[in-house]
Amino acid sequence: MSTLNLTLLTDLYELTMMQGYFKTGNHDVAVFDAFYRNNPSGGAYAICAGLEQVIDYIEHLSFQKEDIDYLRSLGIFNEDFLEYLSTFKFSGDIYAIAEGTVIFPREPLVKVVAPIMEAQLIETALLNIINHQSLIATKAARVCYAANGDGVMEFGLRRAQGPDSGTYGARAAIIGGCKGTSNVLTGQMFDVPVLGTHAHSWIMSFPDEYTAFKTYAQLYPDACTLLVDTYDTLNSGIPNAIRVFTEMRDAGITSKSYGIRMDSGDLAYLSKKARKMLDDAGFEDAIISASNDLDEYLIQSLKIQGSQITSWGVGTNLITSKDNPSFGGVYKLAAIQKDGGDFVPKIKLSENSEKVTNPGNKTIYRIYDKETGKIRGDLICLVDESYDTSQDLKLFDPNEPWKKTILPGGSYTMKELLIPVIKNGKAIYHSPKVMDIQKFCNKEKETLWDESKRFVNPQKIHVDLSQKLYDIRNQLLNQA
Amino acid sequence: MSTLNLTLLTDLYELTMMQGYFKTGNHDVAVFDAFYRNNPSGGAYAICAGLEQVIDYIEHLSFQKEDIDYLRSLGIFNEDFLEYLSTFKFSGDIYAIAEGTVIFPREPLVKVVAPIMEAQLIETALLNIINHQSLIATKAARVCYAANGDGVMEFGLRRAQGPDSGTYGARAAIIGGCKGTSNVLTGQMFDVPVLGTHAHSWIMSFPDEYTAFKTYAQLYPDACTLLVDTYDTLNSGIPNAIRVFTEMRDAGITSKSYGIRMDSGDLAYLSKKARKMLDDAGFEDAIISASNDLDEYLIQSLKIQGSQITSWGVGTNLITSKDNPSFGGVYKLAAIQKDGGDFVPKIKLSENSEKVTNPGNKTIYRIYDKETGKIRGDLICLVDESYDTSQDLKLFDPNEPWKKTILPGGSYTMKELLIPVIKNGKAIYHSPKVMDIQKFCNKEKETLWDESKRFVNPQKIHVDLSQKLYDIRNQLLNQA
Repeated sequence: MSTLNLTLLTDLYELTMMQGYFKTGNHDVAVFDAFYRNNPSGGAYAICAGLEQVIDYIEHLSFQKEDIDYLRSLGIFNEDFLEYLSTFKFSGDIYAIAEGTVIFPREPLVKVVAPIMEAQLIETALLNIINHQSLIATKAARVCYAANGDGVMEFGLRRAQGPDSGTYGARAAIIGGCKGTSNVLTGQMFDVPVLGTHAHSWIMSFPDEYTAFKTYAQLYPDACTLLVDTYDTLNSGIPNAIRVFTEMRDAGITSKSYGIRMDSGDLAYLSKKARKMLDDAGFEDAIISASNDLDEYLIQSLKIQGSQITSWGVGTNLITSKDNPSFGGVYKLAAIQKDGGDFVPKIKLSENSEKVTNPGNKTIYRIYDKETGKIRGDLICLVDESYDTSQDLKLFDPNEPWKKTILPGGSYTMKELLIPVIKNGKAIYHSPKVMDIQKFCNKEKETLWDESKRFVNPQKIHVDLSQKLYDIRNQLLNQA
Repeated sequence: MSTLNLTLLTDLYELTMMQGYFKTGNHDVAVFDAFYRNNPSGGAYAICAGLEQVIDYIEHLSFQKEDIDYLRSLGIFNEDFLEYLSTFKFSGDIYAIAEGTVIFPREPLVKVVAPIMEAQLIETALLNIINHQSLIATKAARVCYAANGDGVMEFGLRRAQGPDSGTYGARAAIIGGCKGTSNVLTGQMFDVPVLGTHAHSWIMSFPDEYTAFKTYAQLYPDACTLLVDTYDTLNSGIPNAIRVFTEMRDAGITSKSYGIRMDSGDLAYLSKKARKMLDDAGFEDAIISASNDLDEYLIQSLKIQGSQITSWGVGTNLITSKDNPSFGGVYKLAAIQKDGGDFVPKIKLSENSEKVTNPGNKTIYRIYDKETGKIRGDLICLVDESYDTSQDLKLFDPNEPWKKTILPGGSYTMKELLIPVIKNGKAIYHSPKVMDIQKFCNKEKETLWDESKRFVNPQKIHVDLSQKLYDIRNQLLNQA
């Protein structure tokens, strides 16, 4: 993605609409919100990711000669519009929630304020990137929550939906909490740990399993994880691994990290047997790692069953977010500013009431309990509203406005979530390193109670509207 | 993908194993099979796709200086191995099933015959590409089967799992039968139709819906699909669309293609109402198209309900293959040739019996009924076996070998599915254009009876083993 020109990574209708605005001389400034409607996998939160790539995309937006030629060949664009595209640069402002932040439905993750032509063009790629990485970061956070402190490795490249999906998916998985990835390209691009040892084919290429293990241990004594399920885990794999570990010990070789990996069978039963066999041979510090269609539910179940696995390689179900493979983020017009005047709020109605949008040029405040630092709720309001945390704060559910909560002044703190990242088309935000985003995300996760992190019927966090925003929304609904 | 260097798009363990083979002087030639175990979405077939990108990847495999520097920085690779990598070129042979072919579980889609070091390196990227595109091509074939001749458009870029996922996913969707895609980059890269009109934001940017429609119709009279559900489909959207169509008709403007699109609400009910309203106004040729979380099941259900939609825009559920978002292809060692001798078959056992592999250097014959041209079954055999279609052919199920079928000589035809695509590291196969692959795929789908294409409990196609292969497999199982 860093070298592929993504300018044409857009739906055709963005360009036909753009030409429409161009030809009708519409230079209005529009506010578009990117937000999502439902948390993945029935959870109570998501993790925001992908901003670095969105900024990169915006900064590199540029129609090359071959792009213009291609568009001309479609026979629907006029020369004056193609001429405009040939020198196109994004000139607007973008606000976004920092990567790694815990997020909730209906709050703008990215807000674009730009001439409507420009804001329209970037819709598709922006959503593609944010939807993908937020999905995988969220899934990773869930898997890591189940692993409860054990290391989780992202191993899904071969099952990812294409190269980028594997590469940026691994980036997002690390943001969400994974210790490392098997994907070497992600390691190179983002300076994150890469992990991995050998496959069944390594074992099968030797005359016997013992020789395969022995050779591997001689080559890589310091990261010596032996895959024990090629032939028979309990009767061949583990005994051969113990034989090799014993020979290493007898030869005075100490390993930084050694152990076994299992990729099939009943992982609860086999890991308990394995632990006993390893312990009996004096290898109490040998790590038992496992893979094979793991996800957060299976890891939690294995832990409940007393499995002795302490290192988890998670592939397909993480890199595709298998039970919920799309994030569902949308990009909706919220306001229009004509000739430098005020922003006029816009609303989209729908036969499906959940598709009705929040109008206006908005921002989001996160409200924390001052004592615990945990999230009390989020408040979406208009950008010109301000709050004094020494005063009482009245919150109400926009769907059930009679349900009110008063937070006493001094009992809460507030933080604005949307930060400016692009100003007049130029990046003014420098993305942290991925491992630093992971650290930030780990702190973010601590702002949620366990009740909101559990998998079954988790406690939802309130995302409220300010009175002013609520009134404008109702007024537009009534007008329509 | 065409410009990003994908050489490091690999799992770390491929490189650690490679170094292991390098240091132990293992120059054996290995046969690896890429195959899948279960058809997506409970179907009875899949569609093979991605070969063009695999060939492209193989031909561009090359470690650049920055790649070598990065690998050195990991502290696990020796200088002599890094030196070897710095001039690395793939030198082996690859056989594959042509893109667009109907395929079945357990048959090798791609067979790699190469020095084991080289064959190992390419595992991850090869699987990533084939898994992704075969998944989406298969889903598209299912959606198009449900649409029963209506046009299906791929509209999923914003919900795809990253840029490549959208771009190559759209390529695969077109192979599987989609008429076009909204993704302009895919259109440019693969010379396939791009489609699309406008979004809700277009409507909302105008003072009223009528003006938005009118302006659009003036700009694009020849592909004038108006989105009618921004405010109220039946009371506002369709009446305004009819008003604009009437004005066009009155002005003597004829349109190549015009109609309405609905993106929310009860599509069965609304489309029937819309059809009547359009017909009553004399617009019998106006097309009713729809989007909104469509998939093969919903399209089939809408058709059963008598929906009047004849053009389908399918997004999220197609581009992510939502109900089954991974293809599950694997890459397994099947044989090893030492010092130019015979290929020695290799088998992988497993606690999970479905993970036991088919050993040997194999090929696949497809058997057709001579009269109908429909598939009778597939036969996996060793490369040195040959068949005479004038003779009777005995087939048996490898899982239930007592169930035998005799095909009388002359009643069937056979076609070898694996074709050589790379020879000594050089491409010897020129991939057809995507629209030609689509045509080929449409013919392929006709080789299946409807009984195998239906969604509920479809009739499985037999994939049998030759007697010789079956005996070798049993012998290796008994030895182990």
